[in-house]
Amino acid sequence: MTFPVVGMVGGGQLARMTHEAGIPLGIKFKLLSDTPQDSAAQVVSDVVIGDYRDLETLREFARGCDVITFDHEHVPTEHLRALEADGIPVRPGPDALVHAQDKGVMRAKLEALGAPCPRHRIVTDPDDVAAFAAEGLAEGEQGKRGGREAPSGKGGGGRRAGGFPVILKTVRGGYDGKGVWFVRSAADAAEPFKAGVPVLAEEKVDFVRELAANVVRSPHGQAVAYPVVESQQVDGVCDTVIAPAPGLGEELAGRAQELALRIAKELDVVGHLAVELFETHDGRILVNELAMRPHNSGHWTQDGAITSQFANHVRAVLDLPLGDPRPRARWTVMANVLGGDYPDMYQPYLHCMARDPQLKIHMYGKDVKPGRKVGHVNTYGDDLDEVLERARHAAGYLRGTITE
Amino acid sequence: MTFPVVGMVGGGQLARMTHEAGIPLGIKFKLLSDTPQDSAAQVVSDVVIGDYRDLETLREFARGCDVITFDHEHVPTEHLRALEADGIPVRPGPDALVHAQDKGVMRAKLEALGAPCPRHRIVTDPDDVAAFAAEGLAEGEQGKRGGREAPSGKGGGGRRAGGFPVILKTVRGGYDGKGVWFVRSAADAAEPFKAGVPVLAEEKVDFVRELAANVVRSPHGQAVAYPVVESQQVDGVCDTVIAPAPGLGEELAGRAQELALRIAKELDVVGHLAVELFETHDGRILVNELAMRPHNSGHWTQDGAITSQFANHVRAVLDLPLGDPRPRARWTVMANVLGGDYPDMYQPYLHCMARDPQLKIHMYGKDVKPGRKVGHVNTYGDDLDEVLERARHAAGYLRGTITE
Repeated sequence: MTFPVVGMVGGGQLARMTHEAGIPLGIKFKLLSDTPQDSAAQVVSDVVIGDYRDLETLREFARGCDVITFDHEHVPTEHLRALEADGIPVRPGPDALVHAQDKGVMRAKLEALGAPCPRHRIVTDPDDVAAFAAEGLAEGEQGKRGGREAPSGKGGGGRRAGGFPVILKTVRGGYDGKGVWFVRSAADAAEPFKAGVPVLAEEKVDFVRELAANVVRSPHGQAVAYPVVESQQVDGVCDTVIAPAPGLGEELAGRAQELALRIAKELDVVGHLAVELFETHDGRILVNELAMRPHNSGHWTQDGAITSQFANHVRAVLDLPLGDPRPRARWTVMANVLGGDYPDMYQPYLHCMARDPQLKIHMYGKDVKPGRKVGHVNTYGDDLDEVLERARHAAGYLRGTITE
Repeated sequence: MTFPVVGMVGGGQLARMTHEAGIPLGIKFKLLSDTPQDSAAQVVSDVVIGDYRDLETLREFARGCDVITFDHEHVPTEHLRALEADGIPVRPGPDALVHAQDKGVMRAKLEALGAPCPRHRIVTDPDDVAAFAAEGLAEGEQGKRGGREAPSGKGGGGRRAGGFPVILKTVRGGYDGKGVWFVRSAADAAEPFKAGVPVLAEEKVDFVRELAANVVRSPHGQAVAYPVVESQQVDGVCDTVIAPAPGLGEELAGRAQELALRIAKELDVVGHLAVELFETHDGRILVNELAMRPHNSGHWTQDGAITSQFANHVRAVLDLPLGDPRPRARWTVMANVLGGDYPDMYQPYLHCMARDPQLKIHMYGKDVKPGRKVGHVNTYGDDLDEVLERARHAAGYLRGTITE
């Protein structure tokens, strides 16, 4: 059989779950992993242990792969170009991936496309942050930016046009709240500049909630859009995802899907693209982040959609026809399982299975450390309150924050 | 984390799919496989290549496993007892597994339990086969066996009580029609005796259809029953499975499930038990075969049930609480993909994905040989005719018997 070999760079849980989805597809899966203990390296047959930052390691790994794809966005662009020059398809390609690697490049490109973004610009030092905040305030007072109101002290229904707080992000290397600062004054803004990396300032959007529009696109241009989901963050880390986003109007949902499909096309993304969005009080959606790989906001698809994001990512990078992205249940909820104070999760895991025989547990094989994502659970059903309660109870019980 | 290690003996597709189901469960999976090319060995990280018939190989493999389970029934009973004596839990245990290894032992035990079986006995030579056939005919003519009619020449609605044809089976080692003979006369019956293995004769049951009642049982006695399915065979090989069995009355379905649960309990089965059944014209169910491992008649559960047979098998052998066995769709159909004349299945595979974005393909990574099971497809939906057509079209197209 001439079933192809997919080379996956990075051994995290996304690689682990992509391998799981690739098994029924009959493809061969080859992994480049930092250590044999990595989440995916525990379950994949064909593993190369090596450093993705080393070009020769990458080249050696890519030999015999029909396509290279990624568990993370950290492979240097010049290495990806070198692989392409060697004749290895890299999907998503370096010209697309840079928009998920560099938030400065991403913002510039989205602005050029007219995609709605929070107010932003590259800042050079704390004084420049203060200037950025003042600009926003001035614009807000003048009512220039789409009729937004001045900042509300209570933060309830008010919309901010600018001023502090401001979000600062290093343009490269951030993840799950790392490389992101929430600053309330110029005096507060020294830290982000210490690394010597360009820093992007963004207005703190006074959003109703966060959404994610996930799409998958293949090289020949076929694309599918998953239902738009609501993503709830706690301390900058994804906590719960509800599919579809409750109460989201068809018009806004359609707009979010169209936006994600347009970004995928314009950036020539191949594979899964997650577009993280803010829904504002005045019915706009603003792009928060892009990720070009399977994404935490799409984990619900494993048990809640006809085709999971992982299966469709594999199909896309191989230019196979994409699978149906539609939901299988009225509601699906994903809740992340974070490490708690107890290193041994097996007993609570057993308890959760006994309590809820319909619970879908997904463990990553990682050692438990406080706050570390070590798994997630999916629940689905007709009654959102019940589905939410089951997912949250299981995730909390596994973490140890719920004990009954 | 103290997540346990499941040791799987045998590297076929059942092991492959059990590994797939074990990944989200976070368990560690260790495989004993004949060759590195075996279906499961292609996708599992921790593989030992060796011969399961060699006790020292088995012992060495079992070291560090928390439990041993099986892809097939061929491990010698005495080896299993030796592993148990070493303190390794073997699930299902040798005293249960012998009923799936030896059809003579299975029939004797089921008879002792009062479980309904076809007329049968161990036969010694072709003359004894003729005697077995004549006994059945005599009983039939006397109307003694549950009021069955004499054989009908047309075979339509008639019920046979005995006579030829007779089914002969070697008591050990048969699989997918191998080790099974359909004989029409004593002159026809020489072959099965050549191997020097005991031969079991069974009446040819004039059944309406074949059913399978699949259950999963854990060491502490929890058990779940999947919906009873209809299994359609072609040339002695499973071709299509329909879940649930169309038109099966609640009473008969309940009786089949109860029978399977009772057999699981009485035989102390741990893990998945498939009870293959004949449904007769007079509303009886007769046990055809037992399998104590995930089974072809349960492959539909991967996409059609809340918890798949593979996940529940893993949960059972680890004595974890079992998952919900209920269906997720009104109808689910599984169709086996057999090898055809074309060794390269990738192009038809691509075509099937394009034709039916909801199709669930499960490939085993095996080289295509005519008649070899190399994969299966699952379809589900509300309209049985449409669901059946989609599954059969895909399986036929992949095999090459349908070309449009």
